[in-house]
Amino acid sequence: MAEHISKQFDMELETIRTRVLQMGGLVEQQILSAIDALMSGDIAKFDKVITEDALVNSMEVTIDDDCQHIIARRQPAASDLRIIITVIKTITDLERIGDEAQKIARMGKTIYQSERYQMPRFREIRKMAEVALAMLRRALDAFARLDASAALELAEEDMRLDDDFAAELRQLITFMMEDPRTISMSIDTLFISKAIERIGDHSKNISEYVVYLVKGKDIRHTSLEDIKRETLGH
Amino acid sequence: MAEHISKQFDMELETIRTRVLQMGGLVEQQILSAIDALMSGDIAKFDKVITEDALVNSMEVTIDDDCQHIIARRQPAASDLRIIITVIKTITDLERIGDEAQKIARMGKTIYQSERYQMPRFREIRKMAEVALAMLRRALDAFARLDASAALELAEEDMRLDDDFAAELRQLITFMMEDPRTISMSIDTLFISKAIERIGDHSKNISEYVVYLVKGKDIRHTSLEDIKRETLGH
Repeated sequence: MAEHISKQFDMELETIRTRVLQMGGLVEQQILSAIDALMSGDIAKFDKVITEDALVNSMEVTIDDDCQHIIARRQPAASDLRIIITVIKTITDLERIGDEAQKIARMGKTIYQSERYQMPRFREIRKMAEVALAMLRRALDAFARLDASAALELAEEDMRLDDDFAAELRQLITFMMEDPRTISMSIDTLFISKAIERIGDHSKNISEYVVYLVKGKDIRHTSLEDIKRETLGH
Repeated sequence: MAEHISKQFDMELETIRTRVLQMGGLVEQQILSAIDALMSGDIAKFDKVITEDALVNSMEVTIDDDCQHIIARRQPAASDLRIIITVIKTITDLERIGDEAQKIARMGKTIYQSERYQMPRFREIRKMAEVALAMLRRALDAFARLDASAALELAEEDMRLDDDFAAELRQLITFMMEDPRTISMSIDTLFISKAIERIGDHSKNISEYVVYLVKGKDIRHTSLEDIKRETLGH
């Protein structure tokens, strides 16, 4: 009986885990489509991303409910509970990433549908997006394989992404001061870059939940040195 | 025995609830201090906000742990579980609000410690901050009194704050185009306003968790019409 119940629990947990990865895949696709549409000006693609954010949101609600049901019904022990709490937090960050993808799509649509002296700096945007996407994939992989070491890499990647954003900002300010006609373009680029930087932040958050899950240790708000020690140490 | 256990559970829940409100009060104070320091240029006050973010973070970790312990130990029924999950989500948003206050302090410190042609637009910043602070207080009050109606007000306030931000952005673009010497000031104002707008967002999130808690209904990602119906309806 205990084994039967335990098997049931494991199956339900596995279902939840699979759904999180599906949600992660969907969010990844949203980012890809939004950036793609930005490069091509495909309005229909922008609209698709905007509409499909509702699907991301409903996945969050579904998985959240599943988690609460499993806690109420199975009354999991502390270690299993950590998994479920990790899932609840992870899907919140995934949903926020979905929001950022939708924002990029909305901004892109506005840009292409209005008179613009210049298009945003696509090459720089694409480069940052590639970094952020790699971070998201790494975080989802870390979740799937319960890999605590990803947190160190992602903390460092996140700092690089923040630096990229700061450098981009300085460049845009220079353009704006040299030629005020570039102001609209610069503000567009700024906001899109900011959305991408936030995707990196959320991905880093997810990797930190995995460390907590694996090591029972909360490394959020921990310095890079401490994260190194925690994930490589013993 | 059951009554004793139930009383214990209630006491532990009450402790958690009190801690959330204390954390909320601390975060409120961080915002007030950051905005205050922005108006006065008080570097020591900026530093205090920057340092005390660590306290906000450690409160989140403590309450999070308390929640997981209470779930593991007391195995609460579905309705009590909802309270605890609501707390876990609420403290995450409070911690993010704390981050925004710290960002405002860091930006303020940088502004005052470097050569600036002009100071940011303080009057507009202060006005937005007052709206965001009122939203936070309303959200914490809603949490304290399990008041689901706050969500409707906060959804509307949040839209107003987003509009304020958009209007401020348009104004800043105008300034920048008319006089490129105002670009630095405009970017400063922009980022501080953005941080304030995000504080409003997080406050709205908290009020939505309360609706879920009170009505067992998830209104996140719901239109204003539907929120109206849900909170005023029956």
